[in-house]
Amino acid sequence: MSTFKLTDELIEQIELLVAEKRNKELESLLNDMHYADIAEIIHELNIKDAIYIIRLLDTEKTSDVITELDEDFRDKILENMSAKEIADELIELDTDDAVDIISELPENRKTEVISYIEDVEHARDIVDLLRYDDDTAGGLMAKELVKVNENWNVLKCVKEMREQAEFVKRVHSIYVVDDNDVLKGRLSLKDLLTTSTRSNIKDVYIPKVDYVYVTDTAEDVARIMAKYDLEAIPVVDEMKRLVGRITIDDVVDVIKEEAEKDYQLAAGITHDVEADDSIWKLTKARLPWLLIGMFGGLGAASIINGFQGAMERFPVLLIFIPLIQATAGNVGVQSSAIVVQGLANDSIDGEIWGRLLKEFLLGLINGLAIAGVVILVSHFAFHTTYNISLTVAVALVTVIINAAVIGTFIPIFLHKRGIDPAVATGPFITTSNDVLGILIYFSIAKIVLGF
Amino acid sequence: MSTFKLTDELIEQIELLVAEKRNKELESLLNDMHYADIAEIIHELNIKDAIYIIRLLDTEKTSDVITELDEDFRDKILENMSAKEIADELIELDTDDAVDIISELPENRKTEVISYIEDVEHARDIVDLLRYDDDTAGGLMAKELVKVNENWNVLKCVKEMREQAEFVKRVHSIYVVDDNDVLKGRLSLKDLLTTSTRSNIKDVYIPKVDYVYVTDTAEDVARIMAKYDLEAIPVVDEMKRLVGRITIDDVVDVIKEEAEKDYQLAAGITHDVEADDSIWKLTKARLPWLLIGMFGGLGAASIINGFQGAMERFPVLLIFIPLIQATAGNVGVQSSAIVVQGLANDSIDGEIWGRLLKEFLLGLINGLAIAGVVILVSHFAFHTTYNISLTVAVALVTVIINAAVIGTFIPIFLHKRGIDPAVATGPFITTSNDVLGILIYFSIAKIVLGF
Repeated sequence: MSTFKLTDELIEQIELLVAEKRNKELESLLNDMHYADIAEIIHELNIKDAIYIIRLLDTEKTSDVITELDEDFRDKILENMSAKEIADELIELDTDDAVDIISELPENRKTEVISYIEDVEHARDIVDLLRYDDDTAGGLMAKELVKVNENWNVLKCVKEMREQAEFVKRVHSIYVVDDNDVLKGRLSLKDLLTTSTRSNIKDVYIPKVDYVYVTDTAEDVARIMAKYDLEAIPVVDEMKRLVGRITIDDVVDVIKEEAEKDYQLAAGITHDVEADDSIWKLTKARLPWLLIGMFGGLGAASIINGFQGAMERFPVLLIFIPLIQATAGNVGVQSSAIVVQGLANDSIDGEIWGRLLKEFLLGLINGLAIAGVVILVSHFAFHTTYNISLTVAVALVTVIINAAVIGTFIPIFLHKRGIDPAVATGPFITTSNDVLGILIYFSIAKIVLGF
Repeated sequence: MSTFKLTDELIEQIELLVAEKRNKELESLLNDMHYADIAEIIHELNIKDAIYIIRLLDTEKTSDVITELDEDFRDKILENMSAKEIADELIELDTDDAVDIISELPENRKTEVISYIEDVEHARDIVDLLRYDDDTAGGLMAKELVKVNENWNVLKCVKEMREQAEFVKRVHSIYVVDDNDVLKGRLSLKDLLTTSTRSNIKDVYIPKVDYVYVTDTAEDVARIMAKYDLEAIPVVDEMKRLVGRITIDDVVDVIKEEAEKDYQLAAGITHDVEADDSIWKLTKARLPWLLIGMFGGLGAASIINGFQGAMERFPVLLIFIPLIQATAGNVGVQSSAIVVQGLANDSIDGEIWGRLLKEFLLGLINGLAIAGVVILVSHFAFHTTYNISLTVAVALVTVIINAAVIGTFIPIFLHKRGIDPAVATGPFITTSNDVLGILIYFSIAKIVLGF
């Protein structure tokens, strides 16, 4: 496709046009662009220029641009806009996107903005949606959907549908409800195109329809839609009344965010941060995990300190500390990552003992392979005695098995307790395996060398 | 929704029904289930039972079940089916899914299976698609789409479309082409519903249409579809002729796989493995990274070994090795993860110096915070002298800054060289920072303590 490429020249050109208030040129340049591309451009501008462009362009365009902006940046933009201006943007948006924006505003501004939304139904839908948690089906859904009554015929249905479709950007399915708004089934546009106009909806609709409850988690909704290849799913309340619809594009975002969160946790970053965030925000996200690692390091220090005698008699033992520690950490991360991913994909059931046995065997194989290489290398490079080689080899195998088993056990255990197993990866697993690894190493040394 | 839950009881029940050949009961139990659920069940059965069920059910159902199976498991199933049986399954599938299955077969079986596909057009489409690489737009696309000629009127268009729609499960857009099959634009179903039947397509179609080239990478397609919120995108060849269509559900899989691959690389697992893979496959995926870590550990060992004098005069230095190493590893992983994620999301531009400066400052802040705590703790816990405390503190700050800068630099460097930056995370970054960390520590000790 005519791929858009954000260049420094483009940004400079736009900054110049803004500075010289050459509005006509700005409009003709930007109006042809996709809103997602305009959002990329706006992110590179200063707030003043960004707001200038948002005020200049049509709200039909800018409302979509605003939904694409990063939350931090958007907050700054919204602070500089009047309640009336924000309301004008929201009117152009589907209710789910409007709610995402309005929910970021301070309480008193929310009310003010809503008072400027003239379309009462739109305003009511937005207020409705504000009740739901961000990470539930209710928080994802939009009110815009096409629904027909089971008691209508196809002709009436098509007529009503055309009216409703005016407000719905993409019609996926036509939902069929009874007189109480309870979801009964669905119709596809294709069916409607190929059915006689005199047929009754009751006789032609498909009663099998997937749906989620407003209270289901966003993660569950994403899993269900991905698993069943759904492009839209209706949302019902506790009485199975149709209250909204979730489309796949919102779920793509959930899937991406979920994957990014797990990745960040595995890398020891707590908050949802990006490379371009402020140093302060990045420090807040990173320091806590470094402190965990630090206390682990201090714990290891006191373990080594406790084996003073060994240090004096067998100083060569100490040169293998980094090896033991790195191996323990790496194995632990590998094992935990596989389990965390399996749990996220639902491909792991509760069967814990078989899995631990497998990790035990895997640790044994990897441990023996690595221990073999290490014995050879250290014999020639460090001229280690037989006893020292034996100590290092036995310690490596034990440490690897231990790390593999712990890396497997902790995520499954957390998952059973209802805690996100992803927190157990990264620095957490590394640190605990580091400390345990050193303890195992010196304990085995004590047994083999007898100090 | 009536959530499906895979239980041991259900598996046992199905195994019993298969063993006693109670086909009627099996059919009535399974025919009501979604194919994705049946695939989950089949994964838990032995191959013989799985094939029994696949042979029992209608190909309309089982073809979708087979597309949902894991590759390893599917290969085993296909080995036990005749070419004719496989062809019967493929006939039910969209070309993109059919190609995914057929491409796994050995060369001679491919030809045999294709010879059994009676629908010549379907067979030709499949052979066509087999030419494309798995991870390109061509490898993702299906041949099923609805296209109309710009020279038709709406009436003819609706008529043709109804015919074509028979073969297309979900119509997203109607693509408009010229007499040479060159993509000109699109029509939405909605437009078609609300336009007079006498209008000419030429006058009503939307000329602005996003598209990708057959040779574009799957990753790029996913990025474009996610960014522009597209549910389907047409694929064109070098002459801009319309050759296929990619739908969002295929891209959801790409996004998930991409995220999982990055996660696995960060955790030090090379191949695309799952928790349920064989011990041998898991070992092959894990051992290489452990060996990298091992050589790093041995490298660290020889560095320490090289500072024999220091070890004898200041043995207390050695107890801080785990702390230095763990901190270096953790900081490196944090920095690299943020950069890798930023690169994946296209939110990082080439601007490398500003980013390195930022990481430098971040490292300085985190380093001072951690060094402060360590000085306090080690003073009271290990009664370290002033000089030792100073050594450890300066080393920590330096090691943290170094790890942050390296963790940022390497992924950007690899990305510029066209190498997937995700390989630089995990054990790779950890190991190099471990070794460098130890070297920095002892070098600083040498300067401060002067041995």
